[in-house]
Amino acid sequence: MDIFDRLKQATPAEWTSYVDHAFVRQMGAGTLPQQAFRTYLVQDYLFLIQFARAYALAVYKSRTLADMRAAQAGLSAILDVEMDLHVRLCGRWGLQPGQIEAAPEHQATIAYTRFVLDCGMSGDLLDLHVALAPCVVGYAEIGRRLAPAGTAALGDHPYRDWIGEYAGDAYQEIAAMARRHLDDLAARAMTERRFSELAALFAKASLLEADFWQMALDDRPLTGPAGSPS
Amino acid sequence: MDIFDRLKQATPAEWTSYVDHAFVRQMGAGTLPQQAFRTYLVQDYLFLIQFARAYALAVYKSRTLADMRAAQAGLSAILDVEMDLHVRLCGRWGLQPGQIEAAPEHQATIAYTRFVLDCGMSGDLLDLHVALAPCVVGYAEIGRRLAPAGTAALGDHPYRDWIGEYAGDAYQEIAAMARRHLDDLAARAMTERRFSELAALFAKASLLEADFWQMALDDRPLTGPAGSPS
Amino acid sequence: MDIFDRLKQATPAEWTSYVDHAFVRQMGAGTLPQQAFRTYLVQDYLFLIQFARAYALAVYKSRTLADMRAAQAGLSAILDVEMDLHVRLCGRWGLQPGQIEAAPEHQATIAYTRFVLDCGMSGDLLDLHVALAPCVVGYAEIGRRLAPAGTAALGDHPYRDWIGEYAGDAYQEIAAMARRHLDDLAARAMTERRFSELAALFAKASLLEADFWQMALDDRPLTGPAGSPS
Amino acid sequence: MDIFDRLKQATPAEWTSYVDHAFVRQMGAGTLPQQAFRTYLVQDYLFLIQFARAYALAVYKSRTLADMRAAQAGLSAILDVEMDLHVRLCGRWGLQPGQIEAAPEHQATIAYTRFVLDCGMSGDLLDLHVALAPCVVGYAEIGRRLAPAGTAALGDHPYRDWIGEYAGDAYQEIAAMARRHLDDLAARAMTERRFSELAALFAKASLLEADFWQMALDDRPLTGPAGSPS
Repeated sequence: MDIFDRLKQATPAEWTSYVDHAFVRQMGAGTLPQQAFRTYLVQDYLFLIQFARAYALAVYKSRTLADMRAAQAGLSAILDVEMDLHVRLCGRWGLQPGQIEAAPEHQATIAYTRFVLDCGMSGDLLDLHVALAPCVVGYAEIGRRLAPAGTAALGDHPYRDWIGEYAGDAYQEIAAMARRHLDDLAARAMTERRFSELAALFAKASLLEADFWQMALDDRPLTGPAGSPS
Repeated sequence: MDIFDRLKQATPAEWTSYVDHAFVRQMGAGTLPQQAFRTYLVQDYLFLIQFARAYALAVYKSRTLADMRAAQAGLSAILDVEMDLHVRLCGRWGLQPGQIEAAPEHQATIAYTRFVLDCGMSGDLLDLHVALAPCVVGYAEIGRRLAPAGTAALGDHPYRDWIGEYAGDAYQEIAAMARRHLDDLAARAMTERRFSELAALFAKASLLEADFWQMALDDRPLTGPAGSPS
Repeated sequence: MDIFDRLKQATPAEWTSYVDHAFVRQMGAGTLPQQAFRTYLVQDYLFLIQFARAYALAVYKSRTLADMRAAQAGLSAILDVEMDLHVRLCGRWGLQPGQIEAAPEHQATIAYTRFVLDCGMSGDLLDLHVALAPCVVGYAEIGRRLAPAGTAALGDHPYRDWIGEYAGDAYQEIAAMARRHLDDLAARAMTERRFSELAALFAKASLLEADFWQMALDDRPLTGPAGSPS
Repeated sequence: MDIFDRLKQATPAEWTSYVDHAFVRQMGAGTLPQQAFRTYLVQDYLFLIQFARAYALAVYKSRTLADMRAAQAGLSAILDVEMDLHVRLCGRWGLQPGQIEAAPEHQATIAYTRFVLDCGMSGDLLDLHVALAPCVVGYAEIGRRLAPAGTAALGDHPYRDWIGEYAGDAYQEIAAMARRHLDDLAARAMTERRFSELAALFAKASLLEADFWQMALDDRPLTGPAGSPS
């Protein structure tokens, strides 16, 4: 069992609350309200910007040229490829680039991204990658879960673009690489005593991912239910 | 007008959503549910731990011995004084130390604290202190607002301990010092062009503070309204 | 006058000690001992690795996508292009990749690189780029200084590869861009009061660059003149 | 054998070059030139300032309140006690506070302090404390080495103040605590594979300490032997 599976096994309730969240189920069933998906898309774009910073931090924290180049490849993939893909996907849902960039970050977006950055800054590379794993590796699991018969079988599913992206071979390979990298880092710096700390961190990150889905379902503005003091 | 007042004036809606939040009003009126206050107290304790880290960061980022000593005094005040005060206040509300320390951080707690730490790490001392100001200086304003006739007039107000703490002279002086420090930092490093960036940061921090009150009113567990996938 | 020229003008002795150092003069005159140049080349390679980390830090510290992309371009240029160029240049001087990577960092290399990283981490983007400027922009000035009649006129100068690289149009344009970027950052965040702090930082970085040349002339191992206690 | 002894045993040449450096021997023999000692004292004061930043970093990086309080105690000891002691010791050697604070940092001071800070920022708490150990624990070993018959036997040794300080019980206990803390951190996060990386870091820090002694013997200004280009 690799480290990722050990982390999942150590935190079943938190992991399930994330990968089997109502947002995910509704997306799979095609019943997810379009507005929830649009809210998600916009916040996910803002999320990506902070994610790029996390990969830059990984370059800074690397102790070998190989680690630096690997993290730089991840950074470059986000800034040079994924953000454009994202803008195009947003475009298909009627969201203009200016609109996306001007959107304020939701509390859920701030919470998970800054948590990851703080784990990485205050800890080491292993802490950083464990905090990133629910996102990087989790999306591959969710993708497969929503396309159990393969991406070709998605037909005219309303969320086939998104599901196909993460269920597809290219992303599955990215996630597989991230798992192997986690194993390498753990072989270097993970004692058994440290595992329980990492599991706690993984659990927290999974809950924050679950809250990210919830934010899109609620579509609460940053200032709470009513958006204004009462 | 000092920098703090300029920041407030530049972000009236966000500032009001925080200092005039329903939680604050209900506390002032004595109608705040005790459970909401207890939730707040516990999260505020977890908040203080991260806050101490922010002051440690300020020591690290200081360029003069005077700045280092000032930040170290703040750090020491939190770790050596405020946390004990907090534990005692919690005790009066029936919360035991073990209970407080074992409590999970809410999303709102993570969001504001890690946002402050990230502002400080990615920016300079001025960014850090502007992100802290809604808390450090804002509590003094809220304290005065809830004790317009002075702390002696609070009588047997159910939240007199809390209000008296922040309306009292000692805390008012701490807040006044923080405002002067902000002015010193701004005199050193604030251009007019940068003011609008700082105001955006201040607005975000104020909204995250408003969400912190809201969290206590909602008392939502970390995984969203239902606490479980539906 | 741009910021870079103001910084030079404010620190003439330190700047001259660097750009007109004996190492530079001897390289220009073609009298620099080959061993000194080889020592320089190896340390400069180790320097580049830390330099890449500084650009990663600049990505992490950026507040706009444009700044992130600019810093990421610099990072990518170092990891994907310059390091290979450097290895090839080392090869022409008889230094094998394994030899270079196994070499211990000299004190001078540690001092300048970690100073830059610390300026960047404890300050803001402007501090970071001012600390980098003696290297990034200074090399262009040194290149032009050593090829006053152009790179074509270098003939069979023993150090024509190095001089041609930095006197050439491609590098001159990189340096010109770095100067413009410095001006942009200064327009955003430089008060006059802060200028004197930046000048002190620039002076220190210039002296550390001068010491980097001196290290190559002395070729002192890390433990001092005798390399062993006496 | 505790971790500190394992680190020493893994790097005997580097460790000896530091604790048995000519500066140390001459101090023990009472033949160290007063000017070398004065240079050392001034740089050691500047060193302490950066050291305080390293302890602030340790507070920031701590994951438990106990670790935070321990690091904060170290920070407070430096800022509130040791710096004053140092100023008084300097005073006995004819150095005025203004003179000390205005002194420029030597390359050796920059190299070791920024190396420690960078190890700590890019790694975890264990990296930070391993980088600090040659200083914190090494001074206790040097103190005992120079007062083999106890501090009372130092008589009117010209460096009895310094030797007595580090050979004395109070400092010996500080060093013993630092060793135990290192063991605690290692029990948490040190795999055998990581040990060799930590030993490399420890070796580098020891060499940088040796260079710090050498700097005082050479008393070279920051710009190299001649202090000016030739």
